[in-house]
Parts: sequence; C-alpha cells; structure tokens
Amino acid sequence: MARLDVATGGHRMQIGFVGLGAMGSAMAGRLLAAGHAVHVFNRTAQRAESLRAQGASVAATPAEATAQAQVVVTMVSDDAALGQVTFGKDGIASALRDDAVHVGMSTIGVDAARQVASRHRAQRQRYVSVPVFGRPDAAAQGKLFLMAAGADADLQAVSPLLGQLGQSTHTIGPEPWQANLVKLLGNFMLMSMVETLAETAVVADKAGIEPARVVEALTGTLFNAPPYRNYGASIAAQRFRPAGFGLPLAQKDNRLLLAAADALGVPLPVASLLHDRFLGVRARGIGEGHDLSALAVGALADAGLRWKDG
Amino acid sequence: MARLDVATGGHRMQIGFVGLGAMGSAMAGRLLAAGHAVHVFNRTAQRAESLRAQGASVAATPAEATAQAQVVVTMVSDDAALGQVTFGKDGIASALRDDAVHVGMSTIGVDAARQVASRHRAQRQRYVSVPVFGRPDAAAQGKLFLMAAGADADLQAVSPLLGQLGQSTHTIGPEPWQANLVKLLGNFMLMSMVETLAETAVVADKAGIEPARVVEALTGTLFNAPPYRNYGASIAAQRFRPAGFGLPLAQKDNRLLLAAADALGVPLPVASLLHDRFLGVRARGIGEGHDLSALAVGALADAGLRWKDG
Amino acid sequence: MARLDVATGGHRMQIGFVGLGAMGSAMAGRLLAAGHAVHVFNRTAQRAESLRAQGASVAATPAEATAQAQVVVTMVSDDAALGQVTFGKDGIASALRDDAVHVGMSTIGVDAARQVASRHRAQRQRYVSVPVFGRPDAAAQGKLFLMAAGADADLQAVSPLLGQLGQSTHTIGPEPWQANLVKLLGNFMLMSMVETLAETAVVADKAGIEPARVVEALTGTLFNAPPYRNYGASIAAQRFRPAGFGLPLAQKDNRLLLAAADALGVPLPVASLLHDRFLGVRARGIGEGHDLSALAVGALADAGLRWKDG
Amino acid sequence: MARLDVATGGHRMQIGFVGLGAMGSAMAGRLLAAGHAVHVFNRTAQRAESLRAQGASVAATPAEATAQAQVVVTMVSDDAALGQVTFGKDGIASALRDDAVHVGMSTIGVDAARQVASRHRAQRQRYVSVPVFGRPDAAAQGKLFLMAAGADADLQAVSPLLGQLGQSTHTIGPEPWQANLVKLLGNFMLMSMVETLAETAVVADKAGIEPARVVEALTGTLFNAPPYRNYGASIAAQRFRPAGFGLPLAQKDNRLLLAAADALGVPLPVASLLHDRFLGVRARGIGEGHDLSALAVGALADAGLRWKDG
Repeated sequence: MARLDVATGGHRMQIGFVGLGAMGSAMAGRLLAAGHAVHVFNRTAQRAESLRAQGASVAATPAEATAQAQVVVTMVSDDAALGQVTFGKDGIASALRDDAVHVGMSTIGVDAARQVASRHRAQRQRYVSVPVFGRPDAAAQGKLFLMAAGADADLQAVSPLLGQLGQSTHTIGPEPWQANLVKLLGNFMLMSMVETLAETAVVADKAGIEPARVVEALTGTLFNAPPYRNYGASIAAQRFRPAGFGLPLAQKDNRLLLAAADALGVPLPVASLLHDRFLGVRARGIGEGHDLSALAVGALADAGLRWKDG
Repeated sequence: MARLDVATGGHRMQIGFVGLGAMGSAMAGRLLAAGHAVHVFNRTAQRAESLRAQGASVAATPAEATAQAQVVVTMVSDDAALGQVTFGKDGIASALRDDAVHVGMSTIGVDAARQVASRHRAQRQRYVSVPVFGRPDAAAQGKLFLMAAGADADLQAVSPLLGQLGQSTHTIGPEPWQANLVKLLGNFMLMSMVETLAETAVVADKAGIEPARVVEALTGTLFNAPPYRNYGASIAAQRFRPAGFGLPLAQKDNRLLLAAADALGVPLPVASLLHDRFLGVRARGIGEGHDLSALAVGALADAGLRWKDG
Repeated sequence: MARLDVATGGHRMQIGFVGLGAMGSAMAGRLLAAGHAVHVFNRTAQRAESLRAQGASVAATPAEATAQAQVVVTMVSDDAALGQVTFGKDGIASALRDDAVHVGMSTIGVDAARQVASRHRAQRQRYVSVPVFGRPDAAAQGKLFLMAAGADADLQAVSPLLGQLGQSTHTIGPEPWQANLVKLLGNFMLMSMVETLAETAVVADKAGIEPARVVEALTGTLFNAPPYRNYGASIAAQRFRPAGFGLPLAQKDNRLLLAAADALGVPLPVASLLHDRFLGVRARGIGEGHDLSALAVGALADAGLRWKDG
Repeated sequence: MARLDVATGGHRMQIGFVGLGAMGSAMAGRLLAAGHAVHVFNRTAQRAESLRAQGASVAATPAEATAQAQVVVTMVSDDAALGQVTFGKDGIASALRDDAVHVGMSTIGVDAARQVASRHRAQRQRYVSVPVFGRPDAAAQGKLFLMAAGADADLQAVSPLLGQLGQSTHTIGPEPWQANLVKLLGNFMLMSMVETLAETAVVADKAGIEPARVVEALTGTLFNAPPYRNYGASIAAQRFRPAGFGLPLAQKDNRLLLAAADALGVPLPVASLLHDRFLGVRARGIGEGHDLSALAVGALADAGLRWKDG
C-alpha cells in the first residue's frame, strides 16, 4: 500500500495506545490513518469499538496493548489513572520491551511525572513526557502542539510518531516532568487570559457597552490570537456550555501548577487568585458540564451582575 | 498632484494637531504625507521642526492650530495636559469652529474624558474620543487600531481622517469616555499578559528550563499573537530597556482603570494585583526608562532571583 | 462652682466645636460637662439643639463659633466638609485668633490634612490633627484613644482639652497628616480583622461547626480584644445592622489609605483585597445602613452561602 | 501526699505522653507536677532525661508508654510523625486499652486527623483531638487554651487531664478533625495579623514615623491583645529571631488550612496571599531559625526597604 509507505515514511510501527477519551481516540485514529498498527486499551472497553472499526486491535489490558509495541502512548485523565495503567496489575511496565518507549501525553502533575519516570528508570525502561495543546479536532488532523521532554535518544526514537500527531514539537529539557510543567504553564496562561477577559467584559457591561463589542474590538486587533477570540466570544455571550476545556479539569490543573510552584519556591499570585476564583465559582454550583469560560461567573457575581445558566 | 487626490480621496482637510510626542509626530507626519494641511502645536516648540520640514505650519498656541481646522486632533501625555491645551489660555476651545470636531486620541482617564466632552458640549462644540493601539512605527504607516466613541454624526465627519491613521476603527458607543475606557481595558489586558508571562518565566527558570525556550514554545504555538511574542521575548531575555510602553505610563493607566472601575462598582482583582506589583517594582528603583516588561522584576524578586539592570 | 474648677483644673476654656454628628455631639457634650464654654456649629442647625440645652452657645457660622475660641475642634464627615468649614465662606480660618489652635479630629485623607495644615500655616495659624478611635459612648465618657500630630507647642497648648476627651493620647509626629495616616492604619487593621474573621466563620460553617462557637473559642482566648469579640460576634450572627462603623465610611477610609500608600510607594496587598471586597459587597446592594461587619457577605457569597439581610 | 490529692482531685491517672519537644516536655512536666504517673516516649530518647528526673518513667516505644495508660497524649511535629507513633511498629494503637483514650494535641491537617480517627474507630479505640494555643511557658503553668473535639463520652473521660493543662477548654464538635481545623483557623488569624501589622509598619516607616511608635499607639489602645502587642513589637524592631512560632511551621499550617478549605469549597483570599508571602520570604533565604514575624520581610522588600538579618 503506497499510501501507507508515504504516510509512515516506510516505517510502519507497532504502537500501543492507552486511554481513549475524546483526545486519545482522535490521536489513535490519526495514527491508524497514517498506517500504523495500533493496539488500543481503554478502561471502558466500549470506547474502543469505533477504533476497532478503523483497524485497531483491541487489547484486554494495558500489558496486552504493550506487548508488541515499539512505542506506547498514554493519554489518560489524571495522575492516578496514569499510575494505574502503568504500574498497576497488567500494566504497561509489566510488558514494556527494553527497546520500546513509553510516551506519556496526559496532562499530569510534576510529582506524578517524576515518579513515573523514576519507576521506569528503576526498571531500565524508557519514558518521555510529551503533553499536547489542542482540541480533539486538531488531534484528528495531526495539528497538535507538542511539548517534549526526556532523554535525547528516547525523543529521537519517537520523533516520527510525534511528527504525525503534531504540527510542531518543542523540546523542553532532559527531564520528562519539565514538559509536564510547561503544559501546566500553558494552561495557566489560558486561565489568566480568561479571568482578564472576564474582568474586561464586566467593566464594559457596567459602562453600558455591549461586552461583545469590546471583546471584538480588542481580540480582533491587538489580541488577535485564537484563544483570545474564542474565550472572549464565549465570555461576552455567556456561552459556558458545552465544555471544551472543562472547568473542573482546569481547576485541577491550576492546583497542580500551584503544587509545582510551591515545591520550586515560586509564589504565583495570579494562580492563587485563579484558585480562589475556581472555588468561588464552584461553590455557586458551576462546574460539571461547564467550560473554563464559566470562570467569568466569579467576576460577574462580584459586580452584582446576573449570568445565564448555559 | 494626483497622489494627493488619491490619498485624501479628493478631500484635502485643514487639520489642527496638538501634541507632538513620538506618537503624535508620527501621526501628524502620516497626515501630511496623505496631503492634508496640518497645523501643529507642541508645548516644546522644537519638536515641531521636523514636521515643519515635512510641510506642516507651526502654530504658537493651540488656538492658532485650531483656528482654520475642520478637525483638531489632540495626542498629549495625560489628563492635565489635555485640559490645558483644550480649555487653558489660548486653548482649542477658544478657537474651535462650530462645524469642526475635536478628536481626542490621548490615553486619558474616564473622568477627564467625561469632563472634556461635557465642557465642549456646554459650548456647543463637537468632541469625540478616538484612542489608539499601536507604536509610532505603526502610526507612521497608518496601521493603528482605533477605538472610537461619540455622536454618530461627529464620528462620521472624521472618518476619512481616521481611515488614514488606522488599519481599522471600532465604534464603541455614543459617549466619548467609553472609548477611553476600552483603551484602558486593552492596556489592562497587556499588563495582565506581562505579569502572567513573568510568573511563567520564573517558574521555568527555577525548574531549570531556559525561560526563552518556554516562552517560545508557548508564544510560538497556542499564544501566537504579537504582544505575547514581543513581551515574552523581552521578559525571557530580561531586556527591559528601551521603553516601548513605559512602565510609569502603564502604572498610570492602571490607576486610571482602577478609578473607573471603582466608580462603576466593579472589583478588578487582577488590576489590584498589578497595582501592587507596579508599586513594588518602582520601590526597587525600576521605572524611568524601563519598559512595561520590567514589571517582571516583581515576580523575579519574589522568587529570590536576580535580574539584569537593562 | 467647685465642680467646674475640679473638672477643668481651674482652666475654663473657650472652645469652638464644628461638626455635630454622633461623635461630635458626644464630644462637645463631654466638654460642656467638664465646665468649658462651648460654641457649637453644625451645617444642619437642628442637631445643635440638645447641646444648647446642655449649655452650649449655638453659632450661625463656623466663624462665629471660632471668634472667641482658644481652641476650635472640627469633627466633620470628610475631606470636603473640612475644607468647607475651615476655608469656605465664614469659615474657621476667617476668624481664628492668632493664639488659638484648630484641632482637626475628623478622619480625613493624608492629602487633605496636608492641605489644611499648609493653608493654615500660610495664614500663620496653628493647626494640629488629633483623630480618634472609639464610639460615641466612649466619647461621652472621655474614653477615646487619641492620635496626635503637629508642632509640640500647639499640642502642648491643647493637651488639657485632649485629656478630657481621651483616656490616652499618643503623639505620632510633627506633621499633622501623620496622625491622620495612623488613624487610617488603625481602621485598616480593623478591616483586615473583619475579613479574616469572615473567612474563618465561613470555613467553620462549611465544616459543620457553628460559627459562633469558633468565634467564641478564638476571641475568648488568644484574640481576646474588644474589636475581635465585637466584630466576631456580629459576623457569626450575621448581625450587620445597625451600623457602628458604617460600611461606606470604611470603604472610603480604605480608599484614602490606598491613596496615601500609593503616594508613599508602598504596595498594600491586604488593603487591595479589601478594596475589591468592598466593591463586591456593595455591588450586591449592601452598604447604606450596614456595618463594616457586612463585609463578611463577600466571603459568604464566595462560599456559596446565604446571608441574612440584617 | 495531700498536695497530690488536691492537684489530681484524688484521681492519680496513668498517662502515656508521646512527643517531647518544647511543648510536649512542658506539658508532661505539668502533669507530673500534678501528681500523675506519666510514661513518656520521644523518638530522640535524650529529650526524656529531664522528665525522668521529674519522676516520669521513660518508655522505649510508644506502645510501652501506652500499655498501662488510661490516657495517651500525643504532641508531635506533624501528620507523618503522628501516623508513625500511632500506627507504626510498636505504635500506640498496638497497645491502647479498650477503655483508654488517645488525645491528639498536635497541630495537624484535617485529612490526617480524619484518618487517625477513622483508623482508631476501625479498631474500636477511642480518639479525640485537643490541639492547643500557647507557648511552652504557658504549658508549664497549665495556662494553655484547648480546642477539643470528639465523642462527648471521650471528652468527658479526659476532662480532668485537660483541666490541668489548660486555663480553658472549648468544645468544638463531635468530629475530632473539627478541633484541628479550628486550631489552623486560629493560626491563620495570627498570620493575617502579622501581615497586617507588617504592612502597617512599612507605611509608617515610609511616612517618616517610627514603626514602634505606631505599633504602640495602636496595640496599646484599640488592639490591646497579647498577640498584637508581641508580634507588633517584634515587627517594629525587626526582631525576627529567636523563633517563637517558627516561620516554616506557620507556612506548613497555612498550607494545611488551604488544603482543608479547598476540600470544603471555600476560597480564602487572605490565606492565599499569605501563601505567596511565605514563598516570597523563603525564596529570600528567610526561614530556618526565624519567627513568623519575619513574614514582614515580604512587605519590607516590596516597599524597597532593608531589614535586619535577626
């Protein structure tokens, strides 16, 4: 099949893929489309069915997805899930070949990343962290932005794979956790932008200016980047559902950043402020099903304004 | 001169231009290049000389620059200066023709803008606020972003002029001060971005990652807008001079926003945090000659890091 | 009259007293009871009637209250009122005898205090600032705490009077405004305490502990000072009316402190936080008629808790 | 011995005492002086010697100190130490009699307290939390303030003992962790006071007023409680050593409060601000050997002021 040869550059790889949420499914689908052999595992087996239809082999355990793989990608929801699929019963570590590389792409905490790397190292196994920026549709098209950290040789080994998932890969440093930290910092920049846009929209509203008009005037000119435009529009319209970046996930990531900064000895007043905002918003019943943009409810409430439920 | 006819659309206007700092000079130069008759005034007369060479007539007072003008533009440093050139001795208001429009383009406070508008109105004179985003080089090329507010007819009357100064004009509302408020909000978004980038760079540094690498990884991907890239690069390199947007000016604008928000009944925790940061940075002797990016000294100091003087 | 000789130590003074709010009336009454001749003025004349019944002479203007006085006390609501009664038409300054001393006891801003002192000095008149801590009932019993600043000789001249109004006088410095600053700092300490008690009470409530129980446990032991006990009890009971220290007055004083600290180059993060809290609480319609303790509504709202209107 | 009968009310108890830091030693000494039989254990055995001289029996393990005890008191440094002495090898839980009560008096986190209580309950053992306020000298004189929580019957059983350690006992609620939370809240109130005093002292300094004068004027009048006076004096004098309440311990307790408030869904902006202050101060090398009052270094640094090392 010529198409495959082109897509994989002639290197059809055996890939294990663990974690089939919206992001994981799109990424695994991308790898299948590129011609790789993909062995998928998900805790809830049903989520694997559409990938099976696309040609994936469905494994019963992480170990089974790992056994033949040259690369195993994990894309799970949090620290605990990563620990479980990696070092739990029938986990990745129990089956990882000496020459294979585990590529952790989940958004996790720095401590968790350190531990995963350290336990793999103790077993003489190869591990790199490559968290990503982008939504599922970007994943499906190989348009993610990748932050990669780990040993050079290991990153080199997986670079063809990364090239198929992302439009660019930035190498952060030799320690896998460094990439996880950069991912948390990127999310922090997003959240700070959201809070700032929310305060801006509220001032506009109280000044009798349509928030959408101000948001457009600013994000169509000086702040002309997609996250500004997208979050700005959502905040101006008070369109807080459906969740792109779910508010509870964002809150969790902010906690992870604060923990990392605490360990590094860095005060982060903006992140502290966001922490309090998240708590205040959630105490008002906002959270499940809401997007990060719903953080704006904090600024709205403090200005005595109402907000739509949506 | 065909060029002129094209440039001015056949409408060569008589323009008064008061305030010839870096921005004002560039803007007046642009209007001259477009073929208009420009009568300039600056408190320090010497600054008018290069414009005289470009064809401007140099006035001895704001009133003299105003007398024949269909439009008078003010681009001065602060509230007091605007009050002085407008309502002081031999000021604009003393000579403004009934059919002429005063276009206030300075970055000023909401209260000051209200007063200028109100005093003009009491004298049955026409006033609009059109503050701008952009640096002098953008001004010289007519690439500013304009925020315009005032009566429709007045904005309509000056729209050809605005079209020559800016690449786009956003209409904010019927009250001139509303545009001034939006300008302050835009500056607030810049300052919040700078603080967030500074916190990000400091975390990276303490984590053993070159700040420039993190800044590039984030502002080259998800946050790919010029202000992110420019401020991010300055902060990563600790290149705090020369001043593009001077730190003391930024501090002043933040005070103006806080005052406006106080009057509107809106708490702005991010702006409050910035207020404290500015004070802390200036108490360390940072300010004159430093760019807004030097706000990063606050985050650096609080993390126990050193910074370059520059 | 033996009583008088004892009370005034034989020195019956001629006292002008301007400003008869709850505090001023109690203070003037105290001075009358001590045997002094008190000439009172209040903008709303009616408030002087009960003092007339106690023996005061009621003046038609501040100047009239001042004409015979060795000491003129002002106890008015804000900066503007002080400027008006002092330097307005028929103001104190127009009638103040060379050997008389104006004792400003109002809570005013540092700038206003500087100006009053400076204008008096320009007229070779004597002025000292002696703001007070305490409620009207303490004023009626001469139990206030006085913060005094000004020239030694002037303070010396009025010390018998101060001794009858306060249980103690602390000398702060040679510049009158310094005492006004200390008064603002004391109020700041109160407000910070209120916010801290509010956050404490809310945590307790969410933990299923009766807030009153926690407040009693802490303010009956380690934090056993009247302001802790009083504000703590009000907050625990959500008893926000009537106003002892009115919330809008407290908000104003916090603004005055922030302005003073800005001028001095001192960031005050706790005062900034209080500023935002005040705005947030007022935006919810809390203010007129409410006590400073109602600041707790901010912490309650942010924790998703309800509060009583009272 | 009549003295003993009076002191113990005729009830000489068998008491296990684990944890002989400055506080624990003073408390155990107090119990010995009251006539009780005290079986002490400390990880570093040497610290038990002076108590042995006072009549204590020195145990080789927590279990040995527990075996005969009707009450076992723990006064250790943190969550981990409490877990170790209670549930570790030869721990309290391995030897606690059915009718005996474990009284946890350490300052620990809410989660840790929940776990200790829960594990004891699972073993049908009795546990109450009774953290304390006060310094070692207060402990030696039985003048502590006690916050008690747990089952009524258990608290009743140990009330004679508590009466000998504290000048008062406040009952907080039925769940042991509730008392630990109140202890953290009390420490939070202390820290907030320290930050507020520091900001106050810095404003005074910049205004040319001796900080000690302002502190005395305010803490000798309106804020006349020992913690205000003591911390105020230390801050004014920049006397940051020796540590009464060590700064790193205070930082830890603030983290524990933030964690508890996060779990309860309560934003605590003042505690967040303190968190950042602690990090900023420690990043400047302040910490080991310094008192909580050294938190003032944050406010000093941000105002561009120097501070003494001490």
